[in-house]
Amino acid sequence: MTGHQRRLVAEFEDLDPGGRFARHPWRSPGLGHGEARTLEDGGVFERAAVNVSVLRSRDLHPVAAPGPELAGREYSAASISMVLHAVNPYVPSFHANFRYFEVSDADGEWWLGGGMDMTPSYGFETDAESFHKAIKRCCDEHEIGAYQEWKKNCDEYFYVKHRGEMRGVGGVFFDHLTGSGADRTALAAFTGGALTAISEAYLPIVRRRMGTPYGDAQRNWQLARRGRYVEFNLVYDIGTTFGLNTGVDADNVLASLPPVVRWSRGVVPEPGSAEERLSSFLQPRDWAGDR
Amino acid sequence: MTGHQRRLVAEFEDLDPGGRFARHPWRSPGLGHGEARTLEDGGVFERAAVNVSVLRSRDLHPVAAPGPELAGREYSAASISMVLHAVNPYVPSFHANFRYFEVSDADGEWWLGGGMDMTPSYGFETDAESFHKAIKRCCDEHEIGAYQEWKKNCDEYFYVKHRGEMRGVGGVFFDHLTGSGADRTALAAFTGGALTAISEAYLPIVRRRMGTPYGDAQRNWQLARRGRYVEFNLVYDIGTTFGLNTGVDADNVLASLPPVVRWSRGVVPEPGSAEERLSSFLQPRDWAGDR
Repeated sequence: MTGHQRRLVAEFEDLDPGGRFARHPWRSPGLGHGEARTLEDGGVFERAAVNVSVLRSRDLHPVAAPGPELAGREYSAASISMVLHAVNPYVPSFHANFRYFEVSDADGEWWLGGGMDMTPSYGFETDAESFHKAIKRCCDEHEIGAYQEWKKNCDEYFYVKHRGEMRGVGGVFFDHLTGSGADRTALAAFTGGALTAISEAYLPIVRRRMGTPYGDAQRNWQLARRGRYVEFNLVYDIGTTFGLNTGVDADNVLASLPPVVRWSRGVVPEPGSAEERLSSFLQPRDWAGDR
Repeated sequence: MTGHQRRLVAEFEDLDPGGRFARHPWRSPGLGHGEARTLEDGGVFERAAVNVSVLRSRDLHPVAAPGPELAGREYSAASISMVLHAVNPYVPSFHANFRYFEVSDADGEWWLGGGMDMTPSYGFETDAESFHKAIKRCCDEHEIGAYQEWKKNCDEYFYVKHRGEMRGVGGVFFDHLTGSGADRTALAAFTGGALTAISEAYLPIVRRRMGTPYGDAQRNWQLARRGRYVEFNLVYDIGTTFGLNTGVDADNVLASLPPVVRWSRGVVPEPGSAEERLSSFLQPRDWAGDR
């Protein structure tokens, strides 16, 4: 996964001449090791992180276990995760994560979880469509890929229940994929394909929107929408709950949080505005379908 | 409780000639009613809320129940809660909440929970001492007041586990206080006393610090510390979890969140600076003791 990390960091830096990813390697006896690559205050990305980690620990948190019988067991896990928050309010945020777990004993159970999704502050159908179509293509290229099912999972998962709204336009999300040894190879191949597809799914959207002019009103809307992102990640997200419980440095786990966020009751969209249209835009739709 | 709400709002407005509390009354059939009073972008307070609510609902959330046998029962609850986040980084944030629950049936169980605590971005011993001493005086004036026990509860409760740090300098925190009918009167009297003591415990500190000059470095530190506040409230706080599950408007529940927040790996205090001293300052200490 460090190969993909290196490649993605290079591609993100290519897009953002003003930004450089710093390295934060870590090693913690009895827990694991990893490297967080993080960019702050770039020209295109305001905050971005591409983290890899390998954990080996005694006590599998129930939120990560496929069933209660595996909770508390010794396990190892390898994961790559990334979140990008752009400066320009018209560029959506992007998140992806792939994680491979193995329970370490003779009848070793293993599984793969992962997915990717996108969170715009302004709704553009073109973007949601091209994003979903790129992901669907990647799923279709692999026998185990199940775009429709995983797309539905994603819509259900990234839901900010207390706001009654989706976090973004979704993508795909799956967990606890397992099988025989042969399936393990197929899943590894799919993971590689999906990590490669990120460039095709997300980067064209960044290029398309990063130069759009904006003012204070759009910036304030973005900061308010980022509040929803924080609310989802800290209240509901399983990966965040799991991460904060592992003992991994909280700065690495919370590298997913946006840089500057604003909570205010005053941010209420004007009727008929682009901001108001977001709530009807953020509904589960067949973005990859033919029209 | 609306009397206390009115008085406190008036006192906070007196302190802040640039700020006015707006009214957000609400009524929801099958749930309850209440009024959120909120101030944004004042001269002294950047965001403040004083909310009262009366809930009457069918399904008591387990986090609020004193024991599993009461979870899921029909209940009514009256509460007042307030959070103040100041503009000036040297003015601590303040939080207080009092809530009275009653399970609605013949052998009606009831209990009171509540407390108040303070969260500075910069540590001043004078402030922590005067704050705790005022609270202790109020507890000592009421037979049921148990400052030492409640102070310890508070230190344990307002702990940001994944950061290994306390949220602030604490205060008092108690829950599930109950007893006979006579105790109910004593608890109501204590609640009134505590709500009155807020003016004596917190407002002098605001007056003392609100004019302190500061620059970008202090502002950035404040925004980073506010991130910890958000992390605590969304990840651990029982009142927030309870509130987000009741169906009460999320803007009212999340009125506790600070206005502008920043997450950045770049905010690392200089050795020996006032910012670095905060972590040793934020330790459980006998703030109300004689020295």
